[in-house]
Amino acid sequence: MKSRRVRLVARPKGLPLDSDFQIEEFVVNPHLEAGQVLVRTLYLSIDPSMRIWISGQKSYIDPVPLGGVMFGAVVAEVLQSNSSKLQVGDKVQGFFGWVQHAVVSDKEARKLPSDIPPELFLGVLGMNGMTAYFGLLDVGRPQAGETIVVSTAGGAVGSIVCQIARLKGLNVIGLAGSAEKCTTVVSEFGAHHCLNYNDKDLGKQLRFVCPNGVDIYFDNVGGAVLDTVLPTLNKYARIVACGAIASYNDPRGHPIFNYAVIVSKSIRMEGFIILDYAKRYGEAAAALTGWLQEGRLKHQEHIVNGLENGPAAIRLLFSGQNSGKVLVRVADLAARL
Amino acid sequence: MKSRRVRLVARPKGLPLDSDFQIEEFVVNPHLEAGQVLVRTLYLSIDPSMRIWISGQKSYIDPVPLGGVMFGAVVAEVLQSNSSKLQVGDKVQGFFGWVQHAVVSDKEARKLPSDIPPELFLGVLGMNGMTAYFGLLDVGRPQAGETIVVSTAGGAVGSIVCQIARLKGLNVIGLAGSAEKCTTVVSEFGAHHCLNYNDKDLGKQLRFVCPNGVDIYFDNVGGAVLDTVLPTLNKYARIVACGAIASYNDPRGHPIFNYAVIVSKSIRMEGFIILDYAKRYGEAAAALTGWLQEGRLKHQEHIVNGLENGPAAIRLLFSGQNSGKVLVRVADLAARL
Repeated sequence: MKSRRVRLVARPKGLPLDSDFQIEEFVVNPHLEAGQVLVRTLYLSIDPSMRIWISGQKSYIDPVPLGGVMFGAVVAEVLQSNSSKLQVGDKVQGFFGWVQHAVVSDKEARKLPSDIPPELFLGVLGMNGMTAYFGLLDVGRPQAGETIVVSTAGGAVGSIVCQIARLKGLNVIGLAGSAEKCTTVVSEFGAHHCLNYNDKDLGKQLRFVCPNGVDIYFDNVGGAVLDTVLPTLNKYARIVACGAIASYNDPRGHPIFNYAVIVSKSIRMEGFIILDYAKRYGEAAAALTGWLQEGRLKHQEHIVNGLENGPAAIRLLFSGQNSGKVLVRVADLAARL
Repeated sequence: MKSRRVRLVARPKGLPLDSDFQIEEFVVNPHLEAGQVLVRTLYLSIDPSMRIWISGQKSYIDPVPLGGVMFGAVVAEVLQSNSSKLQVGDKVQGFFGWVQHAVVSDKEARKLPSDIPPELFLGVLGMNGMTAYFGLLDVGRPQAGETIVVSTAGGAVGSIVCQIARLKGLNVIGLAGSAEKCTTVVSEFGAHHCLNYNDKDLGKQLRFVCPNGVDIYFDNVGGAVLDTVLPTLNKYARIVACGAIASYNDPRGHPIFNYAVIVSKSIRMEGFIILDYAKRYGEAAAALTGWLQEGRLKHQEHIVNGLENGPAAIRLLFSGQNSGKVLVRVADLAARL
């Protein structure tokens, strides 16, 4: 059976280009060993950390090798099965990469419940939801009544952080990249205010909407925005260092000048890796699913169609033109093969 | 009785100048209320945080007002007493500021033991020792076998951090400002290696002496040195954000470019205020005194003579030309008034 996959062929400088990737046909070996299944990919998850995986630098996982198939989390549907655990039609989640079809072991494929759209397990009920949950509650340690600022508040993680923070009784200030997104962050994601971080007087606006200062900064961007938020932080503030999008494409782009407040105000800035919370995913999944089913947790997906548009989907993320979780739709659930 | 004191008369730009201060005579009111004592200052403690107190910015204490007497911790001797708790000849410690004599309440004066030189309570057994102890053990959370890098390793705090770290089984790398100081840090303060942070290839040298990377950075300086150490840090490393001397005189001097490793390596960077550990000072004092009396903890004082040389003593600290704790000797223990 013929299928398609995407390989990394050049290490991007700055934003990844289409020409850094190559789409190619390949033949799927139709023979399934015991325990193996053939799956077709439904959705690819598009994540900021992809920019690090393709850079060649070592991080918490090895980088994508040049010439190798692009890494990525996906949800997929079982087309053929030689496994006692998975049946044809089952939806599964795995780290199968940018492929249209794959033969995988049932140990690498987590079966998903049939009553929830599978793509939610790449976003609000997946790594993004886990990241928001543990980053806010475990690293941020919020207290009701405190003030939190959340960057990329309209994004996959930020939108969930805003909502959990609101549920926990915090004063929630979102930061987003356009007036339109700010409107969504307030109307849909529960923020009390949302500021546009392209505004030149962001620091002044922050002080205006946070008259008592900022207790938690959930940081997805780093760079100039982090530098602007630092002087607004209160004594004992926490910076949840979740991402530094501003530095991924341009590591020397915007340095941090105001770091000395970390000393003078006893601030804790802490990075974390969501994989370290693996043993507690069940706790987060239960909470997130509960809030979702009660209608207290909203989610938004930004769908890009076609495997060939993966690189464009990554650029979308870094240009901040997405709203919510970016997914690439590889095959429609309604369509067959 | 005539005495002398030092007032702040201008807010310094950059390094404090003699002309930012004014020495003046004043008359000590000889009348002591119940509970009051007249003391003469023996030593002033000179600390990096003084640069912040005189800058006018609010930190954990209000700044020294323009025209006000310069703040500072001192040890002093009781000359007259109207207190049941303190006798003539007792040595006391307090935050009396840059004065030759003071009338103070016995509530503000902590009586010191008579068998230990009083000036040690401004350094190794005082705030510097407490800062080293709680900063290293509570904020840094060291494990035997880990590698620690300590900046200003020949200074009042750094020299104690190096020694406690060695006692706890760590691999200790000091950073200091001259070859001579590096020699002292290794021979006296227990570091396995000490590097000169004026060397242009500091990053390369650090990687050479820390082949397994750095687990804890005890940072007293911030700035370019922090930026150089950041890429050498291991996963889950801790930065004990104790000071940022590099930024005190020039807040926009050297920004931090490499902060994104905090995200990618799950690093915790944490500031702290030693006053928050007040309830546990006894624990630290017992440990430090024990090590001192067993000969396992060395200390070094850098003495500057005369109240009028306080500003020069502050500059000494920032030029890094001190070795050990900087003290201003105001009166000799042997001399009478």
